[in-house]
Amino acid sequence: MPLLIRSSYISQLHLTNSKPSSSPNQIPSKSLSFSSFNHNPLINLVYKINPTMQNLTFPSSTTVKSSLIEPDGGELVELFVPKSEIDLKKAEADSMPKVNLTKIDLEWVHVISEGWASPLKGFMREDEYLQSLHFNSLRLKDGTFVNMSLPIVLAIDDQTKEQIGVSKNVALVTPQGDIIASLRSVEIYKHNKEERIARTWGTTSPGLPYVEEHIAPSGEWLIGGDLEVFEAIKYNDGLDHYRLSPKQLRKEFDNRKADAVFAFQLRNPVHNGHALLMNDTRKRLLEMGYKNPVLLLHPLGGFTKADDVPLDVRMEQHSKVLEDGVLDPETTIVSIFPSPMHYAGPTEVQWHAKARINAGANFYIVGRDPAGMGHPTEKRDLYDPDHGKKVLSMAPGLEKLNILPFKVAAYDTVEKKMAFFDPTRAKEFLFISGTKMRTYARTGESPPDGFMCPSGWNVLVKYYESLQESDESSKQQTVVSA
Amino acid sequence: MPLLIRSSYISQLHLTNSKPSSSPNQIPSKSLSFSSFNHNPLINLVYKINPTMQNLTFPSSTTVKSSLIEPDGGELVELFVPKSEIDLKKAEADSMPKVNLTKIDLEWVHVISEGWASPLKGFMREDEYLQSLHFNSLRLKDGTFVNMSLPIVLAIDDQTKEQIGVSKNVALVTPQGDIIASLRSVEIYKHNKEERIARTWGTTSPGLPYVEEHIAPSGEWLIGGDLEVFEAIKYNDGLDHYRLSPKQLRKEFDNRKADAVFAFQLRNPVHNGHALLMNDTRKRLLEMGYKNPVLLLHPLGGFTKADDVPLDVRMEQHSKVLEDGVLDPETTIVSIFPSPMHYAGPTEVQWHAKARINAGANFYIVGRDPAGMGHPTEKRDLYDPDHGKKVLSMAPGLEKLNILPFKVAAYDTVEKKMAFFDPTRAKEFLFISGTKMRTYARTGESPPDGFMCPSGWNVLVKYYESLQESDESSKQQTVVSA
Repeated sequence: MPLLIRSSYISQLHLTNSKPSSSPNQIPSKSLSFSSFNHNPLINLVYKINPTMQNLTFPSSTTVKSSLIEPDGGELVELFVPKSEIDLKKAEADSMPKVNLTKIDLEWVHVISEGWASPLKGFMREDEYLQSLHFNSLRLKDGTFVNMSLPIVLAIDDQTKEQIGVSKNVALVTPQGDIIASLRSVEIYKHNKEERIARTWGTTSPGLPYVEEHIAPSGEWLIGGDLEVFEAIKYNDGLDHYRLSPKQLRKEFDNRKADAVFAFQLRNPVHNGHALLMNDTRKRLLEMGYKNPVLLLHPLGGFTKADDVPLDVRMEQHSKVLEDGVLDPETTIVSIFPSPMHYAGPTEVQWHAKARINAGANFYIVGRDPAGMGHPTEKRDLYDPDHGKKVLSMAPGLEKLNILPFKVAAYDTVEKKMAFFDPTRAKEFLFISGTKMRTYARTGESPPDGFMCPSGWNVLVKYYESLQESDESSKQQTVVSA
Repeated sequence: MPLLIRSSYISQLHLTNSKPSSSPNQIPSKSLSFSSFNHNPLINLVYKINPTMQNLTFPSSTTVKSSLIEPDGGELVELFVPKSEIDLKKAEADSMPKVNLTKIDLEWVHVISEGWASPLKGFMREDEYLQSLHFNSLRLKDGTFVNMSLPIVLAIDDQTKEQIGVSKNVALVTPQGDIIASLRSVEIYKHNKEERIARTWGTTSPGLPYVEEHIAPSGEWLIGGDLEVFEAIKYNDGLDHYRLSPKQLRKEFDNRKADAVFAFQLRNPVHNGHALLMNDTRKRLLEMGYKNPVLLLHPLGGFTKADDVPLDVRMEQHSKVLEDGVLDPETTIVSIFPSPMHYAGPTEVQWHAKARINAGANFYIVGRDPAGMGHPTEKRDLYDPDHGKKVLSMAPGLEKLNILPFKVAAYDTVEKKMAFFDPTRAKEFLFISGTKMRTYARTGESPPDGFMCPSGWNVLVKYYESLQESDESSKQQTVVSA
């Protein structure tokens, strides 16, 4: 069924060529110098293909006809205050009780405001929170379900709760002190952290990155309400032009006349095994009769754990992969998914998939142990590596999404390239885990030929070199100060 | 819509008048002597009202027309081998690998075999387990959902798994050594206890009764499959005649021409506050236009924690309440719900409600903190006392069930009776918690007049006296042996 999108949102997107600061939630890139970064060829590639993206102010109140998958709830949520009302709304917010946001809270404001969590219109009130926690889904008024596996909530402490008192509306303040949004008709309810953590992660073990970074230090109350954002969230890290909203992505897919959109979520560098399966997916979709399947290469841009490769390094690496032709720029869109990472395995992969529906993807590629990690205190994977794809295929509200389970790719030592694993000649395949890949890069050892395009690999080597230099320099400083 | 139930199951129910042994999962009743027990007036009441229940062999292959609520999945599951095939099936099972059941496993065999968990046809395979764990519901082939909040699973250890090998079918063996069922087309998958516990209870704190009793000592694998039971599960504790199956209950509701059935789940003695709200519910249903609402007073009969009042004492107490006329025997059916208790609050209350749909109830009464308990290691309720009813009202698959939230009843010190709490004269009300009630009974102190019918209260006093005597006697024995 064709979908009408009313384009009443004036994009706040600015193409800046400023030098990238370190990504907000990553290890600082320290002494890294990316000579090619300010002239990232990917930017040119993206905008060469789609000249309209250069003109980033969309015409107001035009109607875009689309045959893309329907957003959850039937309509893509965007929660930006109309330009004409911004001054008024800001003045109003000045007099409201204030709620201070952490960096991760702000990432969620970003996520909610652009409609990644459609039909969610703000931070969850208790009825939404409970449905998310217990059912991984929300029931709509018409009785149908949309998927909603992660509680998207805002915590406040006792003092803030007291300051809010019986006020109906509150103003949201960034870590930099700017009032960027209001939350309206608020509801305050208890933040039972233990229950939230247990039901979201299936463990309460210490050492869960999102818990330690975000939940443990947070307040004992949750505040839900309707979000109104005064302007689009920007990070000014030189990567904002990669942060396309679901609406912008949908427009881009329409511009490219995509009749299938397949999304690839990642938080790691792209190696040739990834590329193989993305290219293979496109081939399969063409065989299925689609004329123009487009790949959404969609690295996660919010909070990640300390030993993951930081966003700026990953974006540089991804750009090399496209520059090198490993992925076809003509049929690929690279964009940043603004959500923070939970590492909540089968629970989180649903969120990753659901958000991409809202961005227009009707195919979702899922691999081994999606959104997983090692158990924080035991020597095993936290999740059964197969549960992610199983849970995804059964999740309420994701019926309309086509789940494409990964074939396993490994390094074929005979053909000297990444290839789909062939169990009949198992001994000729080499599995290169993320840990192994990082070890190669850290020790300066080269991975086997054909594992990753050399220019992409160099980005990683440089990054790990810079880490080591920085480590050594801090060790020397320690010696001096000791 | 009228529902056709094909009555092909020959009831195995036997009316025994044997002296009750202690209930299998309870504190042994020790030196308790229930003079009136073998002549439990309730048995007479139940069977006086329903003479057909005396003849407990239902005619085979008759069709019962019913306007009761449809069972989940559209058809009530019963998993008994037809009488003509029992010998053959038993012989077949003799040669299968054996799986030993614990008492609680056997309670689940009971539950599944009678269709309380319809449309579940056996212990869960992994796809059912994952849906239960993550979504508290199962998707049927037609795309609709039935509620399924507790994983109904059978654990086996490494040795049993090895013995099963590649066998498709296994025999289930009771703690007494009898082969009572087979599990067919089995699937064996990992038993991640930590994840199961975290997602079911919302905590992994030590001290959860079901976990300590049942999950912690169990094996590292789960085995799912289709259940075939050779004969109905009996406990020979003098209470089997109270254990009516969903099919028997449905027949009974039909016999009574019930046009509404309201279920009351309990694991505690009935006081006049409970009676008030059950009677009030009936009144409300009559006001709504129902002609003959019938109460299903449905005490839980499976595993309960050590400090709960044991089943045999509760059944005796309930019988006094009916004998005394506090509840009307004409419009009440007392029966035992065979499920074990999880104390898993909002997750478990869904199971309690869902199972009663299968027994024909279309109204479900829910109070404060259903299936809750104190946090095992912290000084607070494990669950928010309001979450149970909230989660219940939003749970997938329970849409067809009418949820009746409790009004709060308390002791009115002016009127000297249990009454609905009136906040305008709050000071005149006395809240008597379960703990307080047990303290009264233990210390021999009388509760306020009108809290519970005296004959019912005496049952509790006698039980706690017997506990004390038994305690003292064991103390003396300790002194002697020391």
